[in-house]
Amino acid sequence: MTQRTRALKNEITTEMRLVAAYENMAPEDIRKGVVSGKIAIPCNANRKHVELRAVGGGTRIKVNANIGASPNDSSLEKELHKLEVAVRHGADSIMDLSLGADQMEIRHEILKRSPVMVGTVPLYQTAFELSAAGRDTDEMTADDFLKTVEKQAVEGVDFMTIHAGVTRKAVEAMEYEGRALDVVSRGGAFLVSWLRHNSGESPIFDHYDDILDILRQYDVTISLGDGMRPGTTCDATDRAQLTELLALGELTQRAWEKGVQVIVEGPGHVPLHQVAENMTLQKNLCHGAPFYVLGPLVTDRGCGNDHIVGAIGGALAGMNGADFLCYVTPAEHLRLPTVDDVENGVIASRIAAHVADLSLGRDYALQQEKEMAAARKSLDWPRQIALSFHPEKAQSYRDESAIGDTDVCTMCGEFCAIKKIAES
Amino acid sequence: MTQRTRALKNEITTEMRLVAAYENMAPEDIRKGVVSGKIAIPCNANRKHVELRAVGGGTRIKVNANIGASPNDSSLEKELHKLEVAVRHGADSIMDLSLGADQMEIRHEILKRSPVMVGTVPLYQTAFELSAAGRDTDEMTADDFLKTVEKQAVEGVDFMTIHAGVTRKAVEAMEYEGRALDVVSRGGAFLVSWLRHNSGESPIFDHYDDILDILRQYDVTISLGDGMRPGTTCDATDRAQLTELLALGELTQRAWEKGVQVIVEGPGHVPLHQVAENMTLQKNLCHGAPFYVLGPLVTDRGCGNDHIVGAIGGALAGMNGADFLCYVTPAEHLRLPTVDDVENGVIASRIAAHVADLSLGRDYALQQEKEMAAARKSLDWPRQIALSFHPEKAQSYRDESAIGDTDVCTMCGEFCAIKKIAES
Repeated sequence: MTQRTRALKNEITTEMRLVAAYENMAPEDIRKGVVSGKIAIPCNANRKHVELRAVGGGTRIKVNANIGASPNDSSLEKELHKLEVAVRHGADSIMDLSLGADQMEIRHEILKRSPVMVGTVPLYQTAFELSAAGRDTDEMTADDFLKTVEKQAVEGVDFMTIHAGVTRKAVEAMEYEGRALDVVSRGGAFLVSWLRHNSGESPIFDHYDDILDILRQYDVTISLGDGMRPGTTCDATDRAQLTELLALGELTQRAWEKGVQVIVEGPGHVPLHQVAENMTLQKNLCHGAPFYVLGPLVTDRGCGNDHIVGAIGGALAGMNGADFLCYVTPAEHLRLPTVDDVENGVIASRIAAHVADLSLGRDYALQQEKEMAAARKSLDWPRQIALSFHPEKAQSYRDESAIGDTDVCTMCGEFCAIKKIAES
Repeated sequence: MTQRTRALKNEITTEMRLVAAYENMAPEDIRKGVVSGKIAIPCNANRKHVELRAVGGGTRIKVNANIGASPNDSSLEKELHKLEVAVRHGADSIMDLSLGADQMEIRHEILKRSPVMVGTVPLYQTAFELSAAGRDTDEMTADDFLKTVEKQAVEGVDFMTIHAGVTRKAVEAMEYEGRALDVVSRGGAFLVSWLRHNSGESPIFDHYDDILDILRQYDVTISLGDGMRPGTTCDATDRAQLTELLALGELTQRAWEKGVQVIVEGPGHVPLHQVAENMTLQKNLCHGAPFYVLGPLVTDRGCGNDHIVGAIGGALAGMNGADFLCYVTPAEHLRLPTVDDVENGVIASRIAAHVADLSLGRDYALQQEKEMAAARKSLDWPRQIALSFHPEKAQSYRDESAIGDTDVCTMCGEFCAIKKIAES
């Protein structure tokens, strides 16, 4: 039984009640959202959850932080530190994207310790194990992949990115049209290579029903991966992306029919004027399924500052319907993120999520703005700092300016506009 | 003779030719833009310019960096360092907002050394001198203010923020409606206080024609200040703001009639869904005059990270018609910016300007994206780093990851998607 199958039977589950309380919504509205598919509550039946979250359907916009080791930079301790920092700054979920020899141990520990939902990309494990066994990833069979999915489902993974939309048609569309940067998704690249070296569809597409059967058993939410996402703004909203998105719409429907909860992943690199239309396309083609965007990155030139580029795209995406923002760190395109990068990435995405929620008139966001305005008017510095997205940083800024406990700051000093007006 | 009066006489000036070359536009189109008022070329006749810039009318979006000392934190050396850093990272103009005993010396040196256009808010000097002479700023006379404007015009200031739109009507609108945070503009606060302690309109509104006469003489561009700008998203797009904006539209027309070039300043704190409509309002009410936005800040909660909040607002504003972005640094609302804050502020605004220019299909921006996509595809790391907004930071990220001169990065290592596709 999944949250979805229970919702369809008119049951309001404990999980629905918990997320309803967090969202300040009626539990029945959460149930209806799960029925329509607009809301997903990723919560593997095999895992104990400290903080449950709903994604989509008018709930607060959620933020995901990708962590995980890479073959060139692997340390359990570092990844657990990233987990702690991401959660402290408000990540609603963690994806463990570890690749390499330590990936099983790292995932195990993250699943044990994470208070928030945990996602993975099982294809990474399959690919790594094939590679470690001296087999080429182009030799992957359905069994290889299903084994990984089952293993991770049993372990308690709450949502899994599965690139079932990387079809032969999507690859042909890409090749015929031509792309400036082909494929930048790791999962997408594995599958494109597989399709180039084999006939028929990928084992993931061919055995989609078998995958759904496993996911349903443990109530793992499927996060339909966007393997063909544009890796440069030059390729945005092109035929390959749209061919995959059309497939993702059908795969969404098939998952819902099997009782599996769905999230759909989206671009990627998208210029600002195409962000809103990308949201509309996904919502229409996937019948309102929650949209999980990777940024979007509204320029390719952000390396070193891609958290800012992602925040611009994420805010506009959120205002136009995106439900779930995958953070981007300043390290994107340059290196595996450090703990500091994770911190900066989560904060930038939290800003974007709040900005979007505010633009949509969500109560919690309006209330926080009112409180900040009141704190400014009364020159209440501790309250202003507490209400900021990064109180430690804001406090250190004020401390370094050595203004002490005066009621102004070093920007205007005695010429403070707020003071002037209050005294006039 | 100003650029405007010469354009009206069908003259294409050297300055028009220079900015046309930078914009890759026809000099005649620049002239036409100056005639219509959609383009301003701030360039005081008394100053030698190294880098001239046009603002508005379909030219690239420009970025301004506010520097300047405050009574609590004053050092000529520090301000000159900020100037150097801001220009190095691509600021198109500098505003010296110094307040305090050193303000004359600092402005003098900035005007001497700045390769880019320099703006000021003359009211700050008037207010400081009154205060230093033991006079209350509420006693300011037209003469006090006109003296400062003339002095700074002679010195070579290219554009001046003048809050002529802070009228009694705007203040009454604010008081009748009520605001969460009243006035946050320093200039606005001086004038509101003046209006509360005197009868009639402010000397700046009353003597607007005299001000324009001085500005015309030296070809100082007027930047019509937004003293009533909302200081919290709760107050955005309210009666006080709109009453002032209506006045700014009329003041724009009066300046154009006198041959003075005009820029109009805009909000301020504005929630994301109101950014586009604010651009339309200004463009309509001010007949297409260049719009110079302060951020906008799309949430009040950004202190410590307001450069990110400003980049979100600035990108969307630029896409919807803003011509000139005033940077916001991470120090906003907390302290006078340090050199590092200036660097981070300029880079965030440059990102926003590029993102907006790209969304508008401007050639230079499209070309840079293409080059970045090509550099990514060929795994050309030096080129990727050179094309980023902050090459030193991007380089240090790569260096710290100790990946050496391999062709991948530590994010995916051997599982690099771009490599995989190239080899498949």
